[in-house]
Amino acid sequence: MNLVENVLEGDRLALARLLSQVENDTEEGRAALEALFPYTGNAHLIGVTGAPGTGKSSLVNQLARHFRKEKGCRVAVVAVDPSSPFTGGAILGDRVRMRDLAGDPGVFIRSMASRGSLGGLATATAAVTQVFDAAGYEMIFIETVGAGQAEVDVARLAHTTLVVDAPGLGDDIQAIKAGILEIADILVVNKADRPGAEYTERALKGMLELAHPTRRAFLHHGRPMGTSGQEEEPRDAPLWVPPVLRTIATQGEGITELAEAILHHAEHLRASGDWATRERARLQSELDALLQEMLIARFREDVPQARYEEVLSRVFQRALSPWEAVRLLLDGRAS
Amino acid sequence: MNLVENVLEGDRLALARLLSQVENDTEEGRAALEALFPYTGNAHLIGVTGAPGTGKSSLVNQLARHFRKEKGCRVAVVAVDPSSPFTGGAILGDRVRMRDLAGDPGVFIRSMASRGSLGGLATATAAVTQVFDAAGYEMIFIETVGAGQAEVDVARLAHTTLVVDAPGLGDDIQAIKAGILEIADILVVNKADRPGAEYTERALKGMLELAHPTRRAFLHHGRPMGTSGQEEEPRDAPLWVPPVLRTIATQGEGITELAEAILHHAEHLRASGDWATRERARLQSELDALLQEMLIARFREDVPQARYEEVLSRVFQRALSPWEAVRLLLDGRAS
Repeated sequence: MNLVENVLEGDRLALARLLSQVENDTEEGRAALEALFPYTGNAHLIGVTGAPGTGKSSLVNQLARHFRKEKGCRVAVVAVDPSSPFTGGAILGDRVRMRDLAGDPGVFIRSMASRGSLGGLATATAAVTQVFDAAGYEMIFIETVGAGQAEVDVARLAHTTLVVDAPGLGDDIQAIKAGILEIADILVVNKADRPGAEYTERALKGMLELAHPTRRAFLHHGRPMGTSGQEEEPRDAPLWVPPVLRTIATQGEGITELAEAILHHAEHLRASGDWATRERARLQSELDALLQEMLIARFREDVPQARYEEVLSRVFQRALSPWEAVRLLLDGRAS
Repeated sequence: MNLVENVLEGDRLALARLLSQVENDTEEGRAALEALFPYTGNAHLIGVTGAPGTGKSSLVNQLARHFRKEKGCRVAVVAVDPSSPFTGGAILGDRVRMRDLAGDPGVFIRSMASRGSLGGLATATAAVTQVFDAAGYEMIFIETVGAGQAEVDVARLAHTTLVVDAPGLGDDIQAIKAGILEIADILVVNKADRPGAEYTERALKGMLELAHPTRRAFLHHGRPMGTSGQEEEPRDAPLWVPPVLRTIATQGEGITELAEAILHHAEHLRASGDWATRERARLQSELDALLQEMLIARFREDVPQARYEEVLSRVFQRALSPWEAVRLLLDGRAS
């Protein structure tokens, strides 16, 4: 397939075209994803999330620049936009964001509008991420807005998740963030020159203690049955304690330290075996989503639309419960 | 079934027990939902959503009190909490919220923690709503926090959706709200005594004009083929233009007007036929979710876990693409 070959050879235009195909879930996009799959699994995926107003976009831009200019990495940014779930349409402009990295073939920034369908955003983001991975981008930032379920699902894609906070966003937003804190690998207090930065940092550290159990001493509870006693002691994998770092993205302050923390986390994941665990979990949810989709497609082939509509009408009239309707559609009888 | 009969007879304790069964998705809960289904379809479901800090909870409390005390309705509130998607646990306390309606058998307030699984929250909320509906609650408020996809899905359950805003929440949050505005039937500027209320109202009205097409004059494009010419003119169903109302929930101001707008919207839905359209759409998504669940359950029965794990491992090793894996699991061959 020509498009796939061109993407593997580093053709930017082909990459942009393929990303659109994949985002729109076309036949060609699916075939290309399948062809590219063996080339994936090399990138470090970094999720960046947090409430609106924390300055995530500036932070991601600075990190992308740092990894490109200081480390020579090929860097991609997938910016999931706070756009309408109904009409789509990106709010962030690619051109605005790319200004100072424009023309650098080692950087690619892609804005994605959120999709209306449940799970659609996470699926589309995963697919776009795989294309970048296969195309040889080594650091892939996945930037999401907000802290809802959709954002959590997107963040689950990542090896390393940054949760960004900023001073002065109010207590209500803090309450929502408590949930997303549990998936944080690194916490960032951005806009750290604003009043209240110390308070925000203390609050995050306090919430971290609630979200992550304190490190317990390794307790040896005896051996599994049937083992010889010659095996190694269970490995006491080092526990990752999420650091809280301060940045001022607009001035580039704290970016080097944050970039080091990201690389340090990757080392930790590889040393502890968690890298493989996360990869496997990610591929499993992808497999499950595809399975689900295929099962539904086959159901639609088996059951004529008119039959489905007729059963739905009987549910609407309260003559059948939804459970009876499902049994009727799948087995030909309601009970 | 005893629990179901007791719920239908108005036993509060039985209702509370059943709600827990349903929320935890137990066998008993499912059986009860099925038995209760023929008794549903009578309630007016009102979704209330908006960003944190807008005072939605106070507003819902005031509306519940109004419909109870002024209209004699039986009122239920389902408060979907901004809690962790990982550990559950409600932040809002039922007792705090119920204080001044405590002991009134015509009011029931239920806090729900959000669920980890995709779609789980909307499904669980729909189920709890059905229990209240069958139990004879006439006005059911579904209160959600935030404006993410999960909240939109919850809001889709409702006949009438209120989107609540408040002055001084910042522009970033406004950007996110643009999406949810499209599902608004009534807009509320709460905390209207704060500075900037007029600006917020103007901004909402401006966004409304973007989200809802302006009312067009009815154009008669000729008759359908094969009709006699004796039939009625196509009915020019009145278009609902979402009103923007100001409230100060903590002082009870604007509540009567808002309650009237809610009742007016219900009349509009019934007159235009949209009530039935929304009911049907709601039941269809419920049916589809159950179908999906059952298809997956049957797949799990058909394919042994060990086989699934083996195929997943080959995906992990990049020896199979996820698409090949799906074909292998469903058809016994990868291509």
